[in-house]
Amino acid sequence: MATTPSAQYSLTLRVEIDHVPGMLGKVASAIGLAGGTIGAVDLVGVDETHTVRDITVETSDAGDWPRLTDAVNAVPGARVLDATDRTFMLHIGGKIEQHNKSPLKTRDDLSMAYTPGVARVCTAILQHPDKAFQYTIKRNTVAVVSDGTAVLGLGNIGPRAAMPVMEGKAMLFKEFAGVDAFPICLDTTDVDEIVSVVRAIAPGFGGINLEDISAPRCFEIESRLQAELDIPVFHDDQHGTAVVTLAALYNALRLTGQRIDSIRVVIVGLGAAGIAVSNILTEAGVRHLIGCDSRGAVHMERPDYLDGTMSATKRRLAERSNPDHRAGAPADVIEGADLFIGLSGARVMPAEALAKMNPDPIVFAMANPNPEVSPEDAARYARIVATGRSDYPNQINNVLCFPGVFRGALDVRARMITETMKTAAARAIADIVADDELREDYIIPSVFNREVAPAVAAAVADEARDSGTASIEGSEMGFAAPEGLLSGM
Amino acid sequence: MATTPSAQYSLTLRVEIDHVPGMLGKVASAIGLAGGTIGAVDLVGVDETHTVRDITVETSDAGDWPRLTDAVNAVPGARVLDATDRTFMLHIGGKIEQHNKSPLKTRDDLSMAYTPGVARVCTAILQHPDKAFQYTIKRNTVAVVSDGTAVLGLGNIGPRAAMPVMEGKAMLFKEFAGVDAFPICLDTTDVDEIVSVVRAIAPGFGGINLEDISAPRCFEIESRLQAELDIPVFHDDQHGTAVVTLAALYNALRLTGQRIDSIRVVIVGLGAAGIAVSNILTEAGVRHLIGCDSRGAVHMERPDYLDGTMSATKRRLAERSNPDHRAGAPADVIEGADLFIGLSGARVMPAEALAKMNPDPIVFAMANPNPEVSPEDAARYARIVATGRSDYPNQINNVLCFPGVFRGALDVRARMITETMKTAAARAIADIVADDELREDYIIPSVFNREVAPAVAAAVADEARDSGTASIEGSEMGFAAPEGLLSGM
Repeated sequence: MATTPSAQYSLTLRVEIDHVPGMLGKVASAIGLAGGTIGAVDLVGVDETHTVRDITVETSDAGDWPRLTDAVNAVPGARVLDATDRTFMLHIGGKIEQHNKSPLKTRDDLSMAYTPGVARVCTAILQHPDKAFQYTIKRNTVAVVSDGTAVLGLGNIGPRAAMPVMEGKAMLFKEFAGVDAFPICLDTTDVDEIVSVVRAIAPGFGGINLEDISAPRCFEIESRLQAELDIPVFHDDQHGTAVVTLAALYNALRLTGQRIDSIRVVIVGLGAAGIAVSNILTEAGVRHLIGCDSRGAVHMERPDYLDGTMSATKRRLAERSNPDHRAGAPADVIEGADLFIGLSGARVMPAEALAKMNPDPIVFAMANPNPEVSPEDAARYARIVATGRSDYPNQINNVLCFPGVFRGALDVRARMITETMKTAAARAIADIVADDELREDYIIPSVFNREVAPAVAAAVADEARDSGTASIEGSEMGFAAPEGLLSGM
Repeated sequence: MATTPSAQYSLTLRVEIDHVPGMLGKVASAIGLAGGTIGAVDLVGVDETHTVRDITVETSDAGDWPRLTDAVNAVPGARVLDATDRTFMLHIGGKIEQHNKSPLKTRDDLSMAYTPGVARVCTAILQHPDKAFQYTIKRNTVAVVSDGTAVLGLGNIGPRAAMPVMEGKAMLFKEFAGVDAFPICLDTTDVDEIVSVVRAIAPGFGGINLEDISAPRCFEIESRLQAELDIPVFHDDQHGTAVVTLAALYNALRLTGQRIDSIRVVIVGLGAAGIAVSNILTEAGVRHLIGCDSRGAVHMERPDYLDGTMSATKRRLAERSNPDHRAGAPADVIEGADLFIGLSGARVMPAEALAKMNPDPIVFAMANPNPEVSPEDAARYARIVATGRSDYPNQINNVLCFPGVFRGALDVRARMITETMKTAAARAIADIVADDELREDYIIPSVFNREVAPAVAAAVADEARDSGTASIEGSEMGFAAPEGLLSGM
């Protein structure tokens, strides 16, 4: 997979160009020959002899940049005045900011929003704690909590370096679901301390999105917080991935006509996401499942199961999957499978092995940026291929899930995100793709499909209400009407 | 002090009025007779027989409201359709929200602000941790941390009920100094746990504003966090009050012509604010000071000093103040004082006792809402009177201090707020009042004076640079220029 120029490696070149006909064309050609793809061209200034332009150029690697500026400088009559990394520029000072919802310009404003008037609001919440949801940001605010131990493909980079990802996550919450999210990056990796910190800061939040916390600590942290807090706690790396994978599977099965309880599944990679996917598939009715980690297929006769060194999470998986105790590498257990799910790393699955799958093979190779099997190679064997990448069809991306899930949960003040709420979210995502749109290369909606988050929110809220997890009968994607404070006075 | 109608108790009355000449006047008169002061009158709708108007009415107490609506309903041809508490209405859903600084509408946006492009920014911070100040919200973000134990005049109301105050504080940070502040209300009152929580969440913040944490725990929490963190930790109830009090004193002395090292001071109230004020005054040169708590003047012969039951904070005060061991109630030790400072509670100081002060008495009676001595009574004895209230001249209000202090500290990435930075802030606040403006009833600028925060920020940043507390040579009230990422490439 050759890398193509993309915005992540884009530059803005400020170029001074002599007033000679055809000069811009020469500069553009030089950029093209050096491997750059030109986006916007803006005029910055003109004087008697020169024009200054900002040229946005996408490249495939930051290593291309010196070559690119050299190429422009080599055009007689053109000079690069400045070159700016657009990705870094966008991050200057961070990507989110606080905003006041009402003005604070006069003494009257101050006396209502702050002292002395605010005391009446505090007193109302003191007397009726649930009014915190009515009169504070708790109603619409989620903490995005990470310790920076399992960030993207970068691994354990710590809390400071994880901040840009968590800010990006907060942006997605706001953009897709109007949820105010705030990044909290923790300077500790101790399970007890993380649980105690999140519990302590919870009063101001309506939900906790755990993010990029490494396995197996993430399982204990999540389950303990779920038990202790009365607001939803959702580890997105687990459940976001699981929900969107299930959504993709629902639609793949619409195409192949199979029943979910009859398919045979091989999952490679049993970190946070792999375990969560195996759980949600089981919850959704899958009966035949084999999970593989770096030692191969997990089963109850494996030495690390027998000698007790296998982790508790994998032990539970071993006990309820792979009843035939099939052993070996992924390529050894793929025979007879209908669905391959990769949540591990680059190229762990030889494409040829996919030939041993059942008719209508489905391949979800989600390692990012390099999938378990290249989509091109997989397509030679599989009927349906999905990845985690944005530059191939069928991108399985958590962005389809978490904004709507929290929107729905906040709208009805759900106390938790249950298994049935997650399944409802998956169904809602799948149903966005209409029967007449559904195709092998379109089983999952685009991350920019604006129908997804509201549909997920409505499904999650409905399920929360039906199951009694909701605290109020909220409206969809918005706020309940303010209390008629003096009604009937 | 009779309470006058104010915005904190304001209503919006929606009134339907028959089309009869003079009706609005009758409604307005009825409102006035019932004790309400009319603000805006908006036309909501008109039909053939009626007009509907929204009338904003300030009252002096929520208890007046039934009387007010009854009075309007008693006007023939007028009916109150709805009545809304404006203070509660302003709090619906909270007072602050998150805002994305750049759009997230296209795949290119996503690939720069989130995956995959964000990984390069994370890596840059991992390699150079100080770049967190360049590329994340840390540069401009302050945590407003409270455990809700000492909120306004309300006392220990807990973290949920404290949220509206902390949100209001965040609004003030943004409004006056462009600082992004986020409220963190803690579900614990344990000193060790608060220290550990704040330390854990610190990586994403450029400063910590501790707020409304009760004494004496606030002293230990602040000093331990100051020792452990490399960002400023500032307990506003202590130091904000101290800075603005010192500013007021500087200007009072400009009027009376006294030197700060010659005046005699009595401070009544030795909670967080009283201790901090005594410290900053000593730092600023005051040599004659007597502090009083509920048992009277503190000195080294008081029984609780001798038997060791006096708190460590007060012991330190006893050891460096009141060398003559003057004993008794505030009224007993006020004789010969030049400055009375009240930071305790309503009416603890009989006005007549002020007659015993030296010539040109200065009285800062800051208990809120009810001062230690009423300003009217104090004015009969004192040359200069200041309070914490907005409806009297000379309001000593922390809002004059904390936005500018953090703005200045963030601008130069100060690692702490030192004593000299606080003194510089006080001087900057005082200097806003020009020589030709200075009067007995104008020693302190208005909280809405927009010159204050920039002046404080500049003074704090300068002092941080001069003393080596600053990490960078930042610009005032703004951001340093972005790195020229490719400069010299």
